[in-house]
Amino acid sequence: MTRYKLVVEYHGGDFVGWQRQDNGPSVQASIEQAVADFCGETVVASASGRTDAGVHALGQVVTLDISKDTDANTVCKALNAHLRDVRVAVLQADAVAEDFHARFSATGRRYRYRIVNRRAPLALDEGLAWFVPVPLDADAMHVAAQCLVGHHDFSSFRASQCQANSPMKTLDEISVARHGEDIHITVAAKSFLHHQVRNIVGTLKLVGEGKWNSDDFRAALEACDRSAAGPTAPAHGLYFVGVTFE
Amino acid sequence: MTRYKLVVEYHGGDFVGWQRQDNGPSVQASIEQAVADFCGETVVASASGRTDAGVHALGQVVTLDISKDTDANTVCKALNAHLRDVRVAVLQADAVAEDFHARFSATGRRYRYRIVNRRAPLALDEGLAWFVPVPLDADAMHVAAQCLVGHHDFSSFRASQCQANSPMKTLDEISVARHGEDIHITVAAKSFLHHQVRNIVGTLKLVGEGKWNSDDFRAALEACDRSAAGPTAPAHGLYFVGVTFE
Repeated sequence: MTRYKLVVEYHGGDFVGWQRQDNGPSVQASIEQAVADFCGETVVASASGRTDAGVHALGQVVTLDISKDTDANTVCKALNAHLRDVRVAVLQADAVAEDFHARFSATGRRYRYRIVNRRAPLALDEGLAWFVPVPLDADAMHVAAQCLVGHHDFSSFRASQCQANSPMKTLDEISVARHGEDIHITVAAKSFLHHQVRNIVGTLKLVGEGKWNSDDFRAALEACDRSAAGPTAPAHGLYFVGVTFE
Repeated sequence: MTRYKLVVEYHGGDFVGWQRQDNGPSVQASIEQAVADFCGETVVASASGRTDAGVHALGQVVTLDISKDTDANTVCKALNAHLRDVRVAVLQADAVAEDFHARFSATGRRYRYRIVNRRAPLALDEGLAWFVPVPLDADAMHVAAQCLVGHHDFSSFRASQCQANSPMKTLDEISVARHGEDIHITVAAKSFLHHQVRNIVGTLKLVGEGKWNSDDFRAALEACDRSAAGPTAPAHGLYFVGVTFE
């Protein structure tokens, strides 16, 4: 039996999320089915980030075990062949140690949120970014966001259905940068609360449009109360970018 | 009556092309219908480039005449409202002189062709780029392409159904540049033959994968014979980028 680490890209709009669920197609089930189609084995695929419905991945990391005598390159090609009808692609496959685990071995996760900030609706990027027609001040958003860096109680940005034991998390980095019409919000942490990034982005938008200033934003964090912060930004602007391991 | 110049973005995958046809939805018909929905007028929309089925636009230019007493900002907003169910967006609208014409006033047109060059299929960019899994040497493609610059007989890159009077065209610029996995081929000319860009790209791919060298590529141009050049690259990698006017 060999454990394989896969780096996976997918279009979240087609799925109920990473995790296998009864109510529709999941990325997990697609990958597990591709393995079954390849070698007839029933596997459980683990991911570094259990992304929600609509959330995209550029570099999700997945581990799974295959008994068949094969190699990483063959696994990569075969899974892509069996995934051809869904928008999931295996970018890379590597054989790893048996105790390596996509979720438990991860020491850092990185997300990017993409806003397209212009007056006209999105023809080409529909479903791939949050369309925000009101002008946003990305620099003001960046400055306000810096109070989140460090170890905090993130209750104000935590979904009510979040299953984490504690609202305490350490945010390693957050940046907001404009590239023409695009605004990219990049965040890095060991782990995140449910909806934490989308709730941060929805609240930073209030700063970007001038409804809130940095003090308001900090007060929302310090309130430790979800109702003190802004709305949840839509899933289709969020990308799970990558994972770091020891 | 006021003539409006529109800058338009669209997703070519949803359309039989720019031009109104009996066999499916066209960008032209979508825009003309949006004008009718806005002000009840039957207009004919003219475009700078009559893009084929599947070809995208980032900055197509369209002119049309509206009798209703309105203004450019209202036209832009109203058309986008009526275009909400299709992947067409009006980026900008301006009132222009009555003798300004999207097609006949244009002095330069610019296209970009996008290749994603990697082994894994495209999950996020499906339909938005040509997926080429064999490694391509973009520098070699760039060097070979330079023989196209200037005034030439482009018969080798001209579709059999091309309706131009002459195969003679002047290519102002062509560049091939790699940005990570992306290869962008940018071309500029006053006007193009039918399928000219896609036939150039399909032939440059032969250079990129090492099957042809620069001399082979030049010989294909000089043969003035479509069968001497390579295949037509797929429509979904092509973007109509923009237009220049006097």
